[in-house]
Amino acid sequence: MNLILLFEEDFLPDGRQVRLTGRRLEHVRTVHRAKTGDELTVGLLGGRIGSGRVLRLDKEALEMEVALDRDPPPPLPLTLLLALPRPKVLRRTLQTAASMGVKRIVLLNAYRVEKSYWQSPMLGEEALREQLVLGLEQARDTALPEIELRPRFKPFVEDELPALAGGTRALVAHPAAAGPCPRASEEPVTLAIGPEGGFIPYEVEKLSECGFAPVTLGERILRVEAAVPALLSRLF
Amino acid sequence: MNLILLFEEDFLPDGRQVRLTGRRLEHVRTVHRAKTGDELTVGLLGGRIGSGRVLRLDKEALEMEVALDRDPPPPLPLTLLLALPRPKVLRRTLQTAASMGVKRIVLLNAYRVEKSYWQSPMLGEEALREQLVLGLEQARDTALPEIELRPRFKPFVEDELPALAGGTRALVAHPAAAGPCPRASEEPVTLAIGPEGGFIPYEVEKLSECGFAPVTLGERILRVEAAVPALLSRLF
Repeated sequence: MNLILLFEEDFLPDGRQVRLTGRRLEHVRTVHRAKTGDELTVGLLGGRIGSGRVLRLDKEALEMEVALDRDPPPPLPLTLLLALPRPKVLRRTLQTAASMGVKRIVLLNAYRVEKSYWQSPMLGEEALREQLVLGLEQARDTALPEIELRPRFKPFVEDELPALAGGTRALVAHPAAAGPCPRASEEPVTLAIGPEGGFIPYEVEKLSECGFAPVTLGERILRVEAAVPALLSRLF
Repeated sequence: MNLILLFEEDFLPDGRQVRLTGRRLEHVRTVHRAKTGDELTVGLLGGRIGSGRVLRLDKEALEMEVALDRDPPPPLPLTLLLALPRPKVLRRTLQTAASMGVKRIVLLNAYRVEKSYWQSPMLGEEALREQLVLGLEQARDTALPEIELRPRFKPFVEDELPALAGGTRALVAHPAAAGPCPRASEEPVTLAIGPEGGFIPYEVEKLSECGFAPVTLGERILRVEAAVPALLSRLF
């Protein structure tokens, strides 16, 4: 937790002080081991970042006087279409995507996505948000990504994807692709990443019809949780 | 498991056929769901890759006729100095590093490494090798990385590091660094990555004295398991 994410409801009526309990209090007590007077990095969800001076820290509460004086890091101009991975991998990948500044994530079905993954409690609104918050806190960001669930591949690709990817450089990560993943893109990107085992040829074709160019990081096939940071860091 | 890694002792006396049991047999039966006659991608530890035609597959054994006809992907010209992360993170990071083609990994102590991590059973020779093998199987590689454990920072940096990093571009990943991490390096690199919370100033200074230039991926701080693929993919 490199930034303590604050919510409107944390603020006392004066609008300058916050009072935190629960997970954030525990973390500041046991990991940061802060003392009264210390300055901690804080940020308001959807707003600016700054510092919080510790006024009180004990078993009951953490109280800080907060000054929000700068903007969070800029977002990554990338929309991520991710074939739904298994829940454990989803958790880590969402954290990483949020840390790296992705602001729109579509979790998509694909032939090689196990049907049971769509029943996972990880896909509940609160559970998804929890992972995103962890990612923001890690990277000192405050802008929560949006997640959309699309459990049907074909209608999504045919009806929604052309508009979603319009005006962006559309790429599908595909280990067998001929072209290398571009470096240091100056345009916004829509990036599709398949499931373990990859998109099947029909899916790559449907994505190609929407203008997605298959690109590769090389002949080494990476797990999804490594492919996401590797691709994002190559692209921007 | 995108490649089944074979060991010398898997081969029958004719030198063309292998007989596998245990983890690899289970994987081919339950995940690949192969049948007699199928061709699977195989590779010999430290040797070439190719295909194995399934001759027999049942509860007892997987037997294949093997033809090794091409080289594994080239190694990454990078030595990774990694401040020892906690065991769960170490496991994933070793898999990722092996998948991406790193062939020499030094696990290093640092001020912010918890002492207890050095007692982890994950650091046993077999346990380390298991993670590396998983990484190789993922990426269809056969060349096992070497891992060295250096539980004392200062003597390592003073006595060994100058020779180890000599002739390479030496970089230390440091979120507060002024310079961006270079892209598409054409030289071999020695890359140092700190623990959660980063190297302390003294450590960065000692590394600088050995010629390490601090570089950053930007103001967003990533977890080690995301920083490693992000940095490697930016560098090469």
